[in-house]
Amino acid sequence: MEFIKENCITAPKGFKAAGVYCGLRRNKTRKDLALIYSDVECKTVAVYTTNKVYGAPITVTREHLKNNKAKAIICNSGNANTCNADGVAKANLMCEYVANELGIEISDVLVASTGVIGQPLNVELIKDKVPDLIKELSEQNGENAAEAILTTDLIKKDCAVKFMIDDKEVTIGIIGKGSGMINPNMATLLGFITSDANISIDLLDEAFKEAINYSLNRVSVDGDTSTNDMVIMMANGLAENKEINTKNEHYNIFLNALKVVLLEVAKLVAKDGEGATKLIECKVLKAKTETDAVALAKSVIMSSLVKSAMFGNDANWGRILCALGYSGIDFDPNLIDVKFISDAGEIAVCEKGKSIDFSEELALKIIDQKEVIIEVCMNEGCKNGFAFGCDLTYEYVKINGSYRT
Amino acid sequence: MEFIKENCITAPKGFKAAGVYCGLRRNKTRKDLALIYSDVECKTVAVYTTNKVYGAPITVTREHLKNNKAKAIICNSGNANTCNADGVAKANLMCEYVANELGIEISDVLVASTGVIGQPLNVELIKDKVPDLIKELSEQNGENAAEAILTTDLIKKDCAVKFMIDDKEVTIGIIGKGSGMINPNMATLLGFITSDANISIDLLDEAFKEAINYSLNRVSVDGDTSTNDMVIMMANGLAENKEINTKNEHYNIFLNALKVVLLEVAKLVAKDGEGATKLIECKVLKAKTETDAVALAKSVIMSSLVKSAMFGNDANWGRILCALGYSGIDFDPNLIDVKFISDAGEIAVCEKGKSIDFSEELALKIIDQKEVIIEVCMNEGCKNGFAFGCDLTYEYVKINGSYRT
Repeated sequence: MEFIKENCITAPKGFKAAGVYCGLRRNKTRKDLALIYSDVECKTVAVYTTNKVYGAPITVTREHLKNNKAKAIICNSGNANTCNADGVAKANLMCEYVANELGIEISDVLVASTGVIGQPLNVELIKDKVPDLIKELSEQNGENAAEAILTTDLIKKDCAVKFMIDDKEVTIGIIGKGSGMINPNMATLLGFITSDANISIDLLDEAFKEAINYSLNRVSVDGDTSTNDMVIMMANGLAENKEINTKNEHYNIFLNALKVVLLEVAKLVAKDGEGATKLIECKVLKAKTETDAVALAKSVIMSSLVKSAMFGNDANWGRILCALGYSGIDFDPNLIDVKFISDAGEIAVCEKGKSIDFSEELALKIIDQKEVIIEVCMNEGCKNGFAFGCDLTYEYVKINGSYRT
Repeated sequence: MEFIKENCITAPKGFKAAGVYCGLRRNKTRKDLALIYSDVECKTVAVYTTNKVYGAPITVTREHLKNNKAKAIICNSGNANTCNADGVAKANLMCEYVANELGIEISDVLVASTGVIGQPLNVELIKDKVPDLIKELSEQNGENAAEAILTTDLIKKDCAVKFMIDDKEVTIGIIGKGSGMINPNMATLLGFITSDANISIDLLDEAFKEAINYSLNRVSVDGDTSTNDMVIMMANGLAENKEINTKNEHYNIFLNALKVVLLEVAKLVAKDGEGATKLIECKVLKAKTETDAVALAKSVIMSSLVKSAMFGNDANWGRILCALGYSGIDFDPNLIDVKFISDAGEIAVCEKGKSIDFSEELALKIIDQKEVIIEVCMNEGCKNGFAFGCDLTYEYVKINGSYRT
């Protein structure tokens, strides 16, 4: 498997992309309108937020994806187009502009929006820029699309890998956005995945959902589940591998690659959590089941008290046990071992659920790193699980105390 | 019903209390050891944290309360006596010191601890101070006990009311502590309630649980459920009212008074949430059921994004709809109205789930108050509910980034 560093979303054959500034964001230095396009019709699958309140773009994309086919995705940042009386009409208009200009069916265009909720979308700004956006479509403009879908994100989130199936080179690329309102077990953020793989729609859907569950569903920044999150995956078959239609070796290669790119973006999301200074991974080992292990890991990385302690480089492991304790999972607290691990070393801080002597100085050094692992060993079974998060900082509060202004 | 302002915990007949400094807290200006005592044996009920990891004092108190009788509660701050190998033995020792000195049964003494998890408790410090603590026992030292149970709390939390039952004056008093690790649907914090009411154990337990559910179970500061939380209620019958043993008018008067004192302490806990600058109440009106209304209100007050916006005086109502949407409750988003209400006025910001024009200037003025109500009208039924919380601030992160140091 080979990693591709640039223009990830257009790395698979037959995909073009573009990103421009249309005026929805006040900050003119950041693009706010993206387009992804495949000349050839794509098998397409998606997952959506489970929030009862969801954006108009989700209504429209869901409708357009009834046939599991698409050719283009248009996405704006700066406005979520959610909780507005005319939201669905405007989301449809966005598709229509693209369809008319490209000469394709409206139902082949999907739409996504991200930004402030409850402010009417100035769709004219988008209309005016769609011709430019389409002129910009190229394999070299994947970077611009990656940038245009960001909101409070500080870093671009993308990844692509090449691998061989059936003597054919197959590529998967992804761009994502998200740094607040990120919570596991939901679609979690905006993610657009392109691939030239030739795979049946059923197995595409199955691999997609398994990979999402393994990656984005294990990230939490603030426990809030957004109204607008969705992840879309398009596969156009141009790699010309023999269609993957059974769960054979080829399927496994494809699934594995998909997990790799999605996990990379999931980590970038956690690392770029609003105001975060460090990436936190909680690894739960020797749990009774994998479901238990993942639920326990999520409970730890979602705890405000654990997150604050990580920001303060404080080895306050009692809060980790506390978070495990309210996870809803049954376990014996008297079997638990806890370690902190980072590039600066590792340190055991709790054994068999009880305090042990440890060097506070070394613990501080280990936690004061950009990536810290909290390793929890349940000593009850043989299943492992993990989840990603970030620390809770002054900056998170600052960013979210004045998001609209 | 008459409110009592001072020595709340000793306001009911037959109760004495004391609070001293024994050395568990580094800050010598704050007391850290409290005792509450009734000459007469009390009918006693309690609720405990639902955390799977719980403190040694909970194990011991649960054991001592098997007969639902008690005469004394000893409580220290500065150390949670949780996740220590010798925790249960030390919690038992605390009871033993008090029992020996007072000449009562060990099983008549209950114990509670609050503070850092996973640091061995220096129980000798407590042993040395128990004689002094008992010398201090008086009706005038309720204030000292209220102070000694606090940790990061900035304000003392107490309340007492007098009322008539059956021509007898009955009193209920409470002291509480809690400003972080506070989450609804659990015992939530330390609370000790005294009363001279004469009531059957079954109805005492029922009234206690209903009042807890109406008050402390509706507060959230940070979504973390502590390992050590418990609320204990003792009733010694010295008011000499005819025993309340059916759900008659007298029971209702008692229940109502109990709700009043518990709700007052619940509000104080939310107001004093770690780092909080304001109390936030979410009122949910016209929901299908009361359970729905309360769950919706809790979801709003627990959202980090809503809490950050309240800190920033930002009328970002989209986040309120978002939080309602992931509450797990079924509703029609197109019926929802949202208002902000405070001493500075009220303002509608969302109608029928959609954005409406409103003065940002006025909204800021209304939110920039010490107590703010978020009023959500579901327009689907006739049931109401509420929950309390606070804003999320830089200070919360600061306090919890360096709690142990």
